Amino acid sequence: MEAAGVCRSDLHVLDVRPGVLPYRTPFTLGHEVAGRVAERGPEANGPAVGERVVVFGPWGCGLCSRCAAGAENYCDRRADLDAVRTGTGVGLGRDGGMADFLLVPSGRLLVPVGDLPAAQAAPLSDAGLTAYHAVSGIRSTLPVEGGASVAVIGVGGLGHLAVQILRATTSARVLAVDVREEALALADACGAHFGTLLRPDTAEVLRRQAGGIGVDAVLDFVGSHSSLELAVGALRSGGELAVVGSGGGELTVRKPGALPPGVRISLPFWGTRPELEEVVALARKGVVRVETEEFALSSAPEAIDRLRSGRTRGRTVLVPD
Amino acid sequence: MEAAGVCRSDLHVLDVRPGVLPYRTPFTLGHEVAGRVAERGPEANGPAVGERVVVFGPWGCGLCSRCAAGAENYCDRRADLDAVRTGTGVGLGRDGGMADFLLVPSGRLLVPVGDLPAAQAAPLSDAGLTAYHAVSGIRSTLPVEGGASVAVIGVGGLGHLAVQILRATTSARVLAVDVREEALALADACGAHFGTLLRPDTAEVLRRQAGGIGVDAVLDFVGSHSSLELAVGALRSGGELAVVGSGGGELTVRKPGALPPGVRISLPFWGTRPELEEVVALARKGVVRVETEEFALSSAPEAIDRLRSGRTRGRTVLVPD
Amino acid sequence: MEAAGVCRSDLHVLDVRPGVLPYRTPFTLGHEVAGRVAERGPEANGPAVGERVVVFGPWGCGLCSRCAAGAENYCDRRADLDAVRTGTGVGLGRDGGMADFLLVPSGRLLVPVGDLPAAQAAPLSDAGLTAYHAVSGIRSTLPVEGGASVAVIGVGGLGHLAVQILRATTSARVLAVDVREEALALADACGAHFGTLLRPDTAEVLRRQAGGIGVDAVLDFVGSHSSLELAVGALRSGGELAVVGSGGGELTVRKPGALPPGVRISLPFWGTRPELEEVVALARKGVVRVETEEFALSSAPEAIDRLRSGRTRGRTVLVPD
Amino acid sequence: MEAAGVCRSDLHVLDVRPGVLPYRTPFTLGHEVAGRVAERGPEANGPAVGERVVVFGPWGCGLCSRCAAGAENYCDRRADLDAVRTGTGVGLGRDGGMADFLLVPSGRLLVPVGDLPAAQAAPLSDAGLTAYHAVSGIRSTLPVEGGASVAVIGVGGLGHLAVQILRATTSARVLAVDVREEALALADACGAHFGTLLRPDTAEVLRRQAGGIGVDAVLDFVGSHSSLELAVGALRSGGELAVVGSGGGELTVRKPGALPPGVRISLPFWGTRPELEEVVALARKGVVRVETEEFALSSAPEAIDRLRSGRTRGRTVLVPD
Repeated sequence: MEAAGVCRSDLHVLDVRPGVLPYRTPFTLGHEVAGRVAERGPEANGPAVGERVVVFGPWGCGLCSRCAAGAENYCDRRADLDAVRTGTGVGLGRDGGMADFLLVPSGRLLVPVGDLPAAQAAPLSDAGLTAYHAVSGIRSTLPVEGGASVAVIGVGGLGHLAVQILRATTSARVLAVDVREEALALADACGAHFGTLLRPDTAEVLRRQAGGIGVDAVLDFVGSHSSLELAVGALRSGGELAVVGSGGGELTVRKPGALPPGVRISLPFWGTRPELEEVVALARKGVVRVETEEFALSSAPEAIDRLRSGRTRGRTVLVPD
Repeated sequence: MEAAGVCRSDLHVLDVRPGVLPYRTPFTLGHEVAGRVAERGPEANGPAVGERVVVFGPWGCGLCSRCAAGAENYCDRRADLDAVRTGTGVGLGRDGGMADFLLVPSGRLLVPVGDLPAAQAAPLSDAGLTAYHAVSGIRSTLPVEGGASVAVIGVGGLGHLAVQILRATTSARVLAVDVREEALALADACGAHFGTLLRPDTAEVLRRQAGGIGVDAVLDFVGSHSSLELAVGALRSGGELAVVGSGGGELTVRKPGALPPGVRISLPFWGTRPELEEVVALARKGVVRVETEEFALSSAPEAIDRLRSGRTRGRTVLVPD
Repeated sequence: MEAAGVCRSDLHVLDVRPGVLPYRTPFTLGHEVAGRVAERGPEANGPAVGERVVVFGPWGCGLCSRCAAGAENYCDRRADLDAVRTGTGVGLGRDGGMADFLLVPSGRLLVPVGDLPAAQAAPLSDAGLTAYHAVSGIRSTLPVEGGASVAVIGVGGLGHLAVQILRATTSARVLAVDVREEALALADACGAHFGTLLRPDTAEVLRRQAGGIGVDAVLDFVGSHSSLELAVGALRSGGELAVVGSGGGELTVRKPGALPPGVRISLPFWGTRPELEEVVALARKGVVRVETEEFALSSAPEAIDRLRSGRTRGRTVLVPD
Repeated sequence: MEAAGVCRSDLHVLDVRPGVLPYRTPFTLGHEVAGRVAERGPEANGPAVGERVVVFGPWGCGLCSRCAAGAENYCDRRADLDAVRTGTGVGLGRDGGMADFLLVPSGRLLVPVGDLPAAQAAPLSDAGLTAYHAVSGIRSTLPVEGGASVAVIGVGGLGHLAVQILRATTSARVLAVDVREEALALADACGAHFGTLLRPDTAEVLRRQAGGIGVDAVLDFVGSHSSLELAVGALRSGGELAVVGSGGGELTVRKPGALPPGVRISLPFWGTRPELEEVVALARKGVVRVETEEFALSSAPEAIDRLRSGRTRGRTVLVPD
């Protein structure tokens, strides 16, 4: 292993009451990992020994129709999989990458990264892939794109990558919202066209920024009550809201109700294997760059504490001592 | 005019407290209408005098980018339109088709129906178009279609058309749910592969009918608390729920929560001009047939009372005395 | 093995001059095969011993981005693959299924068929899959489908399946063309709405059948000079022509020229893994049925001669003696 | 009128033998026009008097299903339209914009341009729209985009806009090819990632630039024999070639043949009304900028001669004296 990202999901695994998650403990965390192929089994396909790779995280059965199309994140047999054996992915029930070595069952789960620095590569496999998948989901909704506007709520570990991916793959006007000034500065550095602190009138501000008709899509990386309320207030008729963050907020769907006609609300989860190749390609071209805070693997507890405090900028990454 | 459908929206207009809807009263109801071109203005384009047509109902500004693509139902200027002048469509704030003559501002809002009987044609413009639009919305979600399953909840005026449209335009297995035996008989006659009364274990029954992995899409034409709960329980990961009915139920979106990963929830509204052409084409080919109860225009009050009682089968249509 | 289809590609392999194809001979033919899992390697994933399956034929590298999305038929490393080792698929350079046993390198290449008869199942993996992929390619071109028209030229082993797949997965009007009366009878039995012998005025006949504006798509399973000329003459502006058959005809693309504005011409090849699941699902539901002529495996030479003579009806299949 | 572009189509109209085109002469040229609304008819919808606009050029019937979806460029009644009355668009059979005033039959054909300079705005309605439509057509083919490569052959009036539109709306690597050094310099200024003169090994050079697997799409704005040959040689399996230029070259489609498996060849024509809104939106945001050579309207003959000579850089535009 060369690098392993630390994610809010790791906090969730650590903090949740025993028995809530279907995992047999103990196991090693680390579902966002980069490394170098150290050895190959006798029948192994995929990258050669010595090749540098990231690991696709949401391992599916590899055989159902979702997996056949690369969408292992929506594997139809996920519920049937022996959770103790496979969990919901590497490092989530099954031993992950906050370690010296990681065992991967198939070469199909590895994507070569060339000479991308490890601390840049690792976060692509969760933060980058999840952001990319969310952008892919709303992209087809955008009206042939030229005049579209997309709001990104929450410019943290995922949101700052979503801003870059939107700039790289669409011509949409990107509107960033956060509660911290430094997050808006990061959004600006990532190419957002506009940024604003979350205030009572932010929905109206976003609508004005979007030609008065509302934004075509909202990517909500927070998922709190206030972020969801903002999202609904800013959407255009026929627009799309992708709820990515697990902030515990609630959105009530009702007809008749407050939602504009024709809207869609989606709950994307992680991403697909082809999409991981895509986001790695963007990073290798230099158009996506991860903002990181690095810690030694032996300092993992401090890294986790700092993430829990909410003071990190970008993504937290562990590297070998 | 040759026929005008009666719709639950009409009940809503009649029953709602004054001032809730932005309409200046009085006006003539009737937003689901078929007729014959009686006269044309000097600059009129479109069908010739004597041609038989249905009227596209959700009139937009005709100029914004939504309207330019035919999606007048999501017109960007709908909120700005003078509601007193245009309402949200013909017969909804503006004089509609429960009358001898109807004035239409442009030939673009008329679709020829050939020799389709008027009582068949009229319901296509709302019940048929709304069902078609809902099916269109979920169709792109279906996994290349061969093995897909779609649940239709509520086999009334819209639902029985959705069953036929699904059979005509997809290869999905169609699973019908209703609370009335006679609605299931109608679903069967419309080509549903399976029908079941709504019971506590219906979600599990639908999942089993869908190969144990859940249905790819749910079209909910009821929108009550129990129908929405059923929908969520039956969906496959990555599936789509289209909420069409305004039954006052609520669905709570939250992460983490009970919704399967990757689902989408959409709130389609009426339909587009090209889609009205499509559903008319299906009806003219004989693959979509509207189940109707006909009343004389002079008996409109009785027709409305019967619809309010919930005892109608299919769609209620008024025809000239 | 339980059944192996015989294909015009087999004739091509047999008849072509040595050295033209990049295969080391001898090898066993048979790229359209059904069987039962007899044994599994120690690390094998996929169907259990005893399960009945069809074999996905166009084996790719399994790792490139095309393969990750299931499109192994367009594998990016196909040209680099050791042709002697993998050929362009099973039975095409590598030992295939006209044998008692077949060795398959991964469970991902097997699709369960349940109790579908073997002679029905085998043809799905090439004739069925190729027809399904061609229909998938044009489906997104169809104008929301209701009023669309699709012409199928050549109602042989692939074409008669394309007719059924179009009927099962679209609401398009299906227009069949062939030079043999018995092929038109088969098209009719498969659900074609209209059939006509190829004559000098057939393009005009098809246009009339398609509302006077031309057909939305043509699937040409012949690929001769006259079939391509017919296709171009029948197409609507913005329509699509999928050339599937290798009949040696030529089509000249030039601007300005005779092609209607906005047309697309595609050359689909075989199909993807998810699509094989789809066509198997359709067959298991009984909506796709293969017309076959069966021969004992020991009579393969006679079966091949009969196919070469052009007198077969539907697909030729070999079954164990 | 404030500006009118000069196009190779104008040369074609001027140079072709009488009787080849279905136009009654004389008429005024100018199908790429920008101006200010001078007066409105009594029933006119659309922009107000004084508003600055571009004119959508390929006027359709406004009523068929193509037009209902905004695709008037593929109007189903184009062939039936009285060519003497409407031609194939403004300035092509019907009086166009190389004049002081232009009569437009409907507000739906006008797109507001705000304070965009007229010489920038006018070329958007043909050069910009045609380039945008070609990019839209291939965009859905691109593999979720991240690692895609697109070749643009011919960096003239349309090609230099296509480079900018690709950069603005995709993350594809843009590879430019031309026969003139100054065109490559323009490509570079427009954001192309790579440029090369057309040489015997250019197909191989493009394949190498595209990761060794071939480019995902080619936009050929030349359409000569050598450009089409280059396009075919550079394409990836499953890639798409859009032939935009009318350079008289020919491409032969044949199976088996030299085209990679799965390729599509399309012949896009002009663009749709929603797309014109899109490209205007891009220009107003400053991400698309037209390279122009301006001439006074009274110098139209000199402007036309210079265009015919092939020495122009970017687009030729006429402005009032």
